[in-house]
Amino acid sequence: MNVAVLAHERFPDRAKTAVGVLRYADYDVTAVLDRDRAGDRVADHLPDVQDAPIVAGIEDVPDPIDALVIGIAPIGGDFDESWRPDVRGAIERGCDVLSGLHYFLTEDDEFAALADDHGVELRDLRRPPADLTVAEGHSREVDADVVLTVGTDCSTGKMTTSAELVAAARERGIDAALIPTGQTGVLIEDWGIVVDRVPSDFVAGAVERMVRERGDDHDLLVVEGQGSITHPAYSAVTCGILHGAMPDQLVLCHEAGREAIHGYESFAIPPIPEVGSLYEDLAAPVADTTVAAGALNTSGLDDADANQAVIEYATAIDAPATDPVRFGADELLDALV
Amino acid sequence: MNVAVLAHERFPDRAKTAVGVLRYADYDVTAVLDRDRAGDRVADHLPDVQDAPIVAGIEDVPDPIDALVIGIAPIGGDFDESWRPDVRGAIERGCDVLSGLHYFLTEDDEFAALADDHGVELRDLRRPPADLTVAEGHSREVDADVVLTVGTDCSTGKMTTSAELVAAARERGIDAALIPTGQTGVLIEDWGIVVDRVPSDFVAGAVERMVRERGDDHDLLVVEGQGSITHPAYSAVTCGILHGAMPDQLVLCHEAGREAIHGYESFAIPPIPEVGSLYEDLAAPVADTTVAAGALNTSGLDDADANQAVIEYATAIDAPATDPVRFGADELLDALV
Repeated sequence: MNVAVLAHERFPDRAKTAVGVLRYADYDVTAVLDRDRAGDRVADHLPDVQDAPIVAGIEDVPDPIDALVIGIAPIGGDFDESWRPDVRGAIERGCDVLSGLHYFLTEDDEFAALADDHGVELRDLRRPPADLTVAEGHSREVDADVVLTVGTDCSTGKMTTSAELVAAARERGIDAALIPTGQTGVLIEDWGIVVDRVPSDFVAGAVERMVRERGDDHDLLVVEGQGSITHPAYSAVTCGILHGAMPDQLVLCHEAGREAIHGYESFAIPPIPEVGSLYEDLAAPVADTTVAAGALNTSGLDDADANQAVIEYATAIDAPATDPVRFGADELLDALV
Repeated sequence: MNVAVLAHERFPDRAKTAVGVLRYADYDVTAVLDRDRAGDRVADHLPDVQDAPIVAGIEDVPDPIDALVIGIAPIGGDFDESWRPDVRGAIERGCDVLSGLHYFLTEDDEFAALADDHGVELRDLRRPPADLTVAEGHSREVDADVVLTVGTDCSTGKMTTSAELVAAARERGIDAALIPTGQTGVLIEDWGIVVDRVPSDFVAGAVERMVRERGDDHDLLVVEGQGSITHPAYSAVTCGILHGAMPDQLVLCHEAGREAIHGYESFAIPPIPEVGSLYEDLAAPVADTTVAAGALNTSGLDDADANQAVIEYATAIDAPATDPVRFGADELLDALV
């Protein structure tokens, strides 16, 4: 499937869905839309993912395209009205539109009518299944080992680490599956539930449902975590995933050098060992679990500094650690299986 | 306003909304519907709340009634089809129907059409406001002191303790307000947000919105907590309230003798001091808070045993404790202000 990915003014550093799609999804990306970087190529910014031209708007995307993917998610998940011409243009070209925003495209009168006229589908990835319910407390009974990626903050690499772990496990012949809980994971897997949109009563239940649906057919499940239990806005999501997944092991994800909660800078990230212990202690009443490995996002550092940062991080969490994008996920996998 | 309260097969022990309405709401309860106890009176079961006859169905409720309140909430919040004749009958008598179920009466085709025919209102208390958003992290800036009731499990007396605290504070001339987060609190206050239905991303934001809306107009806010951070299904709700409210102090609520999570008996409640510390540690990255008092539900014990249980509980949490229903909330208030 040929897709264009909308990432206006945010590519690549604040466009994690776009980057995730470029890196992991089974789509051919024919263009990235970013009006601030039009004329560049993806490879100018990200050397290690599929390349594509960066264009200013939908009218500059070469044919054929099957879908437009909204590849950014501002805080709060709102729709930015400056994107309207691109979405409109995509629909008029006969493209489906895939969106993980809290704002549902299917409830936008203009887009809904236009999609109807042009026979295309608007897919709101964040719309929860209608038949969710509360958790029953059975996730720990599945056959697979369950690993959950958790973070010191949002955007520390939980989705990336999860995808890299699954890929590395499969390369070793381990039957591993990703349990996606966010829009990027759901885009990559074409399956899953975006749990931050789920009524809070049903978050653990939604995760449990996915773990039980896949847990007896695989040997390793890697559950994509969200947010952080230290986060002033998103911790509910994190806590529900932790208790709904009942993981055997945790991988603690952190970005090198980050000291405060992104977008909430008056809230310091506690010392890393405390964050790890807090995850273990919070999990304990529901599932015995330990921080068995750490993933450090070192994308802002050079190789020497990255190496040093990884060593310090491993010491801080008292477990093996690496940057799975820079150095591969094998070291993490060794610690987990 | 004259209301009838539906509590079939569950009154009073598993009908906490019904009991909350009888005890605290500014309604005249003209009857309780419980087919298993028809012919009894409320006073036969609960001596310390307003009295009313218990009847088998809506047809036995004496005129006049203005509304039927659904006073029970099964796990999962589903509608029990055995209640349909009562809701139908209420609408046909011209009554509004107030419900805190996850199942929305306004989306039930029969009830919606019937309500339309009879010009009555169906009020789904659990329907979240449409304009919720993520928390901004500002709750700690309000003028009022913020107290949050937290629990070792569901149904340990958080709503009751919150209401008793507000009443006791007002009696002392303290300008106190309740921040309701569940259906019973919202019924009592005729204001508030039932946060367990809110998308998990917005739980902290919903609580923050209420705290900021009321926080500068009062000296003490008592935020009604939900669930427990030790709960395999509901902890997401609890965690979001904890971080959204940014409380100065916590009141830890427990039911004497309860050792396992209600309805999830394979999950033990951890030792009480550990639960208290876990709340403090989980709050810490967002708000410095301490368990300053404890509320023990001793309704299953006689006076002597209740006294002894309260003493042991206070020792366990290392803070003043009482049963605010049995002994009044003054001791809690002394510890908090």
